[in-house]
Amino acid sequence: MKEEKSFVKEITPQSEDFSRWYIDVIRKADLMDYTPVRGCIVFKPDGYELWERIQAGLDKRFKETGHRNAYFPMLIPESFFQKEKEHVEGFNPELPWVTEAGGEKLEERLALRPTSETIIGHMYAQWIQSYRDLPVLINQWANVFRWEKRTLPFLRTSEFLWQEGHTAHATEEEAREETMRMLEVYRDFVETEMAIPLYVGQKTPSEKFAGAVDTYSIEAMMKDGKALQAGTSHYLGQNFAKGFEIKFLDRDNQLKYVHTTSWGVSTRLIGALIMVHGDDRGLALPPRLAPIQVIMIPVGPPKFRDKVMARFDPLFDALKAAGVRVKADLREETPGWKFNEWEMRGVPLRIEIGPRDVDNKQCLMVRRDTGEKIPVPLDEAVERVQALLEEIQRNMFVKAKEFRDAHSHLHINTLAELKAHIARCEETGEIAGFVLAGWCGDAACEAKVKEETKFTSRNIPFHPPARKQVCLCCGKEAQHTVWFARAY
Amino acid sequence: MKEEKSFVKEITPQSEDFSRWYIDVIRKADLMDYTPVRGCIVFKPDGYELWERIQAGLDKRFKETGHRNAYFPMLIPESFFQKEKEHVEGFNPELPWVTEAGGEKLEERLALRPTSETIIGHMYAQWIQSYRDLPVLINQWANVFRWEKRTLPFLRTSEFLWQEGHTAHATEEEAREETMRMLEVYRDFVETEMAIPLYVGQKTPSEKFAGAVDTYSIEAMMKDGKALQAGTSHYLGQNFAKGFEIKFLDRDNQLKYVHTTSWGVSTRLIGALIMVHGDDRGLALPPRLAPIQVIMIPVGPPKFRDKVMARFDPLFDALKAAGVRVKADLREETPGWKFNEWEMRGVPLRIEIGPRDVDNKQCLMVRRDTGEKIPVPLDEAVERVQALLEEIQRNMFVKAKEFRDAHSHLHINTLAELKAHIARCEETGEIAGFVLAGWCGDAACEAKVKEETKFTSRNIPFHPPARKQVCLCCGKEAQHTVWFARAY
Repeated sequence: MKEEKSFVKEITPQSEDFSRWYIDVIRKADLMDYTPVRGCIVFKPDGYELWERIQAGLDKRFKETGHRNAYFPMLIPESFFQKEKEHVEGFNPELPWVTEAGGEKLEERLALRPTSETIIGHMYAQWIQSYRDLPVLINQWANVFRWEKRTLPFLRTSEFLWQEGHTAHATEEEAREETMRMLEVYRDFVETEMAIPLYVGQKTPSEKFAGAVDTYSIEAMMKDGKALQAGTSHYLGQNFAKGFEIKFLDRDNQLKYVHTTSWGVSTRLIGALIMVHGDDRGLALPPRLAPIQVIMIPVGPPKFRDKVMARFDPLFDALKAAGVRVKADLREETPGWKFNEWEMRGVPLRIEIGPRDVDNKQCLMVRRDTGEKIPVPLDEAVERVQALLEEIQRNMFVKAKEFRDAHSHLHINTLAELKAHIARCEETGEIAGFVLAGWCGDAACEAKVKEETKFTSRNIPFHPPARKQVCLCCGKEAQHTVWFARAY
Repeated sequence: MKEEKSFVKEITPQSEDFSRWYIDVIRKADLMDYTPVRGCIVFKPDGYELWERIQAGLDKRFKETGHRNAYFPMLIPESFFQKEKEHVEGFNPELPWVTEAGGEKLEERLALRPTSETIIGHMYAQWIQSYRDLPVLINQWANVFRWEKRTLPFLRTSEFLWQEGHTAHATEEEAREETMRMLEVYRDFVETEMAIPLYVGQKTPSEKFAGAVDTYSIEAMMKDGKALQAGTSHYLGQNFAKGFEIKFLDRDNQLKYVHTTSWGVSTRLIGALIMVHGDDRGLALPPRLAPIQVIMIPVGPPKFRDKVMARFDPLFDALKAAGVRVKADLREETPGWKFNEWEMRGVPLRIEIGPRDVDNKQCLMVRRDTGEKIPVPLDEAVERVQALLEEIQRNMFVKAKEFRDAHSHLHINTLAELKAHIARCEETGEIAGFVLAGWCGDAACEAKVKEETKFTSRNIPFHPPARKQVCLCCGKEAQHTVWFARAY
């Protein structure tokens, strides 16, 4: 028990300091490490494996929707950024530059890609000549760079990993369909596999991607009530097509600019996973994404170990054969230490077998999500594991959705009410969460809300739980119903 | 027929100009494109997919041998390179440098990684304290940079993709075992999956990795007789451990330096694949690696199309269900055009079905490796495809090995003989190939051979087909039997 207590103490409670809790958990669970390179982290094996599972799930979906992977140069000539005005303004302040190479000063500086619309636009202009070359549906898995002033592991680092889809189409309609299709791929993956409930909608003009006509996003609520933009899909119109002269001869023999899209998610998703499901005991991973779904631990005095292992090993093999990602912890530590360790690492289900379990032909299953302890006959164990993993997956989504809905505020209608809400939350320690509010469409109102409350518009949801009539800020008629929140 | 001829003409014959053949094939097969970024290429979907299949095959083997993936920063502080003397001398001339970021000049230049021993060494020093922390078995999939003067797509580009394994061990013995284990993983993968026969051995000191104690390599012979180093595995001794202070408290309570290894293969393997198996018709891909294993093409007049498709579709479905990577080409092009197209793209097996085949309840299978045409009863088709794919895989390896052995010269014993051999080959247009020769162990002899013939030592094979008694260059007693060749 002593061990157990001191162990748990190493993680700051969420209620005490959420930011410290987050850092404690990712360090303790060995997901990352800091490096001497400013703002860059190491993705350690347990952190990187989460990314590998995210990659596998998304890559499958990208291929099923007709996309293929490719790889473009990481270094982008400075002149390329000049070709799309908003794009250069948006990204220029954050770029690292290569100015020397092979012992010589370069004639033109090369940026480390922050995103690849420019270099890919340049290549598409060579590849696309005719309507028969369209659509082009390409995705890239890559490292990207944004020299951020304030960094936070997984959420905002100078270098991060992501995928970026870049497609070109003959018509606006097709390109808009693609934009929506990939937004839906993201929603499906994040809700189904990561058990993270999302608000899906359109970004306001001031929050859209630099160079996009329209940006759509999936937004998740972290356990501190702050928003995390978990993925974006952009309809770029003909902006990049015009900047890079991507033209095609259409069926009607007219030379036309293509319509392009881009869409991306990044290693931010690891941060979202932790902040949506984690608790004071550490990580909690949804079964579909968890690298280890079941941890098996033998318990009881060493003298009974042979007796226990005679049941333990066959169950381990049976689970493995059934396709369950199972691991056995046979190290020489106390069971209590191991229980804590694997709870902290977020393994969804634990199975204990001790000598009395063997006598009773059973094992004990312990759920990470509820803590519930369930004795299960050994001959039903495989079946029950599969059912429980599904149940845990479902329950984690439901719990996260209940939390989100409980902190999504629908009855705040004025800036004064919003300020009062925030002040009250700060006083009581409550979570301010998301606020659904009307907006007149004027960027000045949005900016004022941000300045006075740090709440930013998250998105204009496709399916708002209510329709707002007046602008939160100016009181004029609302053009849109918008989610506002503080955001990572 | 006219189409067919003009089509084939677009690829320069290997015998006419191997370098032009190579460029023709990779362009025509749409594997890559040049970019405006010096020495950097685009890996287009058909090229990148080869890399994805290489990645999948290797990643599985790395995990089976206990390794896990991680990701380290791409930017490496200049001071890190200074910590291992040979390493900095080896890589410094090739580095691109970031000197500005986020609008400011950096205090210390950051290199784009050419390889990650330094940054990983720095991190391992934090992570490793005790013998219980060992071994550390980590691999990284990443982009790397070497600002090469002369570039060649896939073989030598300023940016390329690779994997780099980095392991740390308590003892020299364990580290040397790891070095050999990963060399064998490479050999097994490249010979079994890529059907490329290899000479496996140790690099001479002058050809080893900058900072290694010993470097081992797998060397393949391209169809022009030149060598391609297809992968390397390094025993680094305590060189990096001392440079980065990677120490551990051993069981005997002594503080010791770890022993490290590193090992890597890169997108060069794509180049090897093309140059070992390709011919004047284009690519030829071994079935195990081929993204498309079987291409199905309906033939005969359009009026019989329904009749043909009634047999075509079920066979397609049956092959798919059997796990064969099959694609149907139903485009409105002539069968002849399609035959050429898919031969050029290297698909190992073609299946044609026409109206007469339907009458005879058969289909026609055509092998890419031999051109052999095999009528097969439809109800045996799936089984025959599986057998043929295995047979093609085997045959491609055998053919490549026969070619290599035929151009591996065992009876050249002096520098004069080597020069005469080269002169004769240049005169007759024969392939100079590999030459097995004795070497006294003196770097000066090796350098002289290189200077006078451009033949470099490839490796000291573990299993030489003969033992040489005297040094090729000085005639003194040979310490080693070495493969010499011109190399990419």
